[in-house]
Amino acid sequence: MKPVKIGLIGFGTIGAGVVRILQKNRQNIVDRLGTAVEVVCVADLDIKTPRGVEVDQNILTTNAYDVVNHPEVDVVVELIGGYEPARDLILKAFEHGKHVVTANKALLAKHGDELFAAAEKHKVNLGFEAAVGGAIPIIRSIREAFVANRIEAIEGIVNGTANYILSKMSDEDLDFELVLKEAQEKGFAEADPTFDVEGIDSAHKIAILSRLSFGTSVNFDDIYIQGISCITPVDIKCAREFGFRIKLLAVSKFDGKELDIRVHPAMIPESKPMANVNGVLNAIMVRDDLMEENVLVGHGAGSLPTGSAVVGDIVEIARNILSGASGRVPAQSFQTHSVKKIPLKPTREIEGEYFLRFLVQDKPGVLSKISGILGRHEISIESMIQRGRDMDGKGVPLVMMTHQAKEKNIQQALKEIEQLDVVCEKTVLIRVER
Amino acid sequence: MKPVKIGLIGFGTIGAGVVRILQKNRQNIVDRLGTAVEVVCVADLDIKTPRGVEVDQNILTTNAYDVVNHPEVDVVVELIGGYEPARDLILKAFEHGKHVVTANKALLAKHGDELFAAAEKHKVNLGFEAAVGGAIPIIRSIREAFVANRIEAIEGIVNGTANYILSKMSDEDLDFELVLKEAQEKGFAEADPTFDVEGIDSAHKIAILSRLSFGTSVNFDDIYIQGISCITPVDIKCAREFGFRIKLLAVSKFDGKELDIRVHPAMIPESKPMANVNGVLNAIMVRDDLMEENVLVGHGAGSLPTGSAVVGDIVEIARNILSGASGRVPAQSFQTHSVKKIPLKPTREIEGEYFLRFLVQDKPGVLSKISGILGRHEISIESMIQRGRDMDGKGVPLVMMTHQAKEKNIQQALKEIEQLDVVCEKTVLIRVER
Repeated sequence: MKPVKIGLIGFGTIGAGVVRILQKNRQNIVDRLGTAVEVVCVADLDIKTPRGVEVDQNILTTNAYDVVNHPEVDVVVELIGGYEPARDLILKAFEHGKHVVTANKALLAKHGDELFAAAEKHKVNLGFEAAVGGAIPIIRSIREAFVANRIEAIEGIVNGTANYILSKMSDEDLDFELVLKEAQEKGFAEADPTFDVEGIDSAHKIAILSRLSFGTSVNFDDIYIQGISCITPVDIKCAREFGFRIKLLAVSKFDGKELDIRVHPAMIPESKPMANVNGVLNAIMVRDDLMEENVLVGHGAGSLPTGSAVVGDIVEIARNILSGASGRVPAQSFQTHSVKKIPLKPTREIEGEYFLRFLVQDKPGVLSKISGILGRHEISIESMIQRGRDMDGKGVPLVMMTHQAKEKNIQQALKEIEQLDVVCEKTVLIRVER
Repeated sequence: MKPVKIGLIGFGTIGAGVVRILQKNRQNIVDRLGTAVEVVCVADLDIKTPRGVEVDQNILTTNAYDVVNHPEVDVVVELIGGYEPARDLILKAFEHGKHVVTANKALLAKHGDELFAAAEKHKVNLGFEAAVGGAIPIIRSIREAFVANRIEAIEGIVNGTANYILSKMSDEDLDFELVLKEAQEKGFAEADPTFDVEGIDSAHKIAILSRLSFGTSVNFDDIYIQGISCITPVDIKCAREFGFRIKLLAVSKFDGKELDIRVHPAMIPESKPMANVNGVLNAIMVRDDLMEENVLVGHGAGSLPTGSAVVGDIVEIARNILSGASGRVPAQSFQTHSVKKIPLKPTREIEGEYFLRFLVQDKPGVLSKISGILGRHEISIESMIQRGRDMDGKGVPLVMMTHQAKEKNIQQALKEIEQLDVVCEKTVLIRVER
């Protein structure tokens, strides 16, 4: 049988991982697919630096358009990330009748509508298992396994850097800044960590998962996003005392009318599997009307785990090519004419329980002032921790867990509380996700 | 587009679940598949008892062969379980060019070679996601997602009944017999619980997973199987003190030469995700050369979770029918000519750490006799618990964790120890799986 031929755009960590997997596990792929996958073109701006894998120098190019124009390439693998030229390259590849595999979550989150429509128009496949959760087969599971299921919620720890930082802060009682610096030194965090620690990367991923789960296009800029840089060891310790772990969570819930989609630090009960997913591990939970909760845990990043997801997609497309199947599974999980625009639930309409950490002056009457304001906004307190004295004039932490309350009431109350002169800094608010 | 037509054999819990899902989520399936799935024939010995779902009386039959002979049926769904007539029905369905979806793990474990060969010969699909792990998409993940990966180990808590019993024994400090009785009353355990608690059901499942993971046919009768009826609350408590949980584990490991496949109670370090999978939940861990560990957790049984897996397979086959794809993915994950017969590693060749619980007379010198025998067989002790006095003449438990040791040495040592007259009953041995 003829080999299936791929062209690679981007020869960085993941690109090199893909080449390495195709070389070292060549026979395994042949044993399962029935034919080989061959790399016929590799584009990168830097084609000099060795990548630890052997590649025929003749197939290297600095021009990415050589890949999408290559007459032999069946599948274009886009691993450069970012919006442009990735978007244009993928669209050009589609126009040339080539299938595409990408790990580009930012692009799919922002330009999903255009890309999925173009893939359908040109009757080609668009694979993106590697865009969410690395080696975790979550895209394939939603798209093909949970196909009879009406998904009600999808929640994920989908950023390994943020999870590593929170786990390390938790295990070693360290400050965010310190752990971030160490993570950067170890290569677990980027020089500019904004996307990871401020929740933007997680938001890209939950936008993609929402599309697949609910058949909706999400306007990325409307997603509520809060990062983890405000979290302190005190919050983590108090959470533990209340029986919770703090995780950066991407949440998307559909009540049949509105989509509640957001990314923020969340308190998760320690008895739940998600609470015990630590370090760089990712986890994604799907809840639906048929199977209650299904949780998938695995490595969300790295050359070989992510490369393994890319090669999984290549093999899937190869199978479609070999069996003559076209448009077998809709790329966005739903038939295009069934994709709706589900309105987003405004954040202030959300109800839930809240963890609130105030930093207050160590004076009589403070508690009564704060609890008075909360009471007036119909927020009742479930439990509270105040401990220690103000040693250095910076204030003492006062921590409360509320009963079920309305987000708009919470926000209004916090506004008033922050105006009290006994309150020393902005309140830390963490939503509870049970 | 024409609907895809199915015939159901077996209208019990899962069969009724399948019909209910196809009715209640009909629109969701249309939105994703692009057409409807229609039930045109249902066979069961009992067609009188109401199943809680409405079915046209005219499509009911007591003759299962009516389904496999039905001219309109595209996909036969076999849910009667057992070897015969299930085997014959499936083979007949293949002969008539019909695809088959089954949840029958016993049949696949025992007659897999014959069934997979027949499906291939007749160029039809055989779906069996529901046979292992209920709603957990493990079959699809191995077959399609982890396709570039050289799987090294697959381990699972794949029997919900056994996990429920062990969890309950652990939480409430109760005896096996008592919890089993209660589970039977609640409908969580069968009247004859042998398959579940003695590990046979788990062995069926690990045989199937081994075939998919390693491309090998496993002789079911050669699998080492030990159940959980020997486990006592003392074992669970001591395991906890050593930092472990006891789970009924199905294990299959491939070292490149031999397959180490077995089912037995195992000590799992409490820090591992699998250790915290409790109640009726199932979990399956896959380890390979690319992505380290991937763990999938979910409901392994029940009408809707298992029904959801069955409908997922129906939709997959429907997609193949609609897109004209035939033989797109080999049913047993590997191309038939690549399936090997990997020799099994004899149990006595296994090396590992062991938990040993002796019941001994409360006399001086007992410890020295036992540890003397262990020492002569090159078994060194890592830690030990002896506590309490013999109150009723039945003996006191003496618990040891060994360092790495050879199974054949352990077995020989236990044989000698059990001959000591200070030893009151057969030793409980639990293997450690890290």
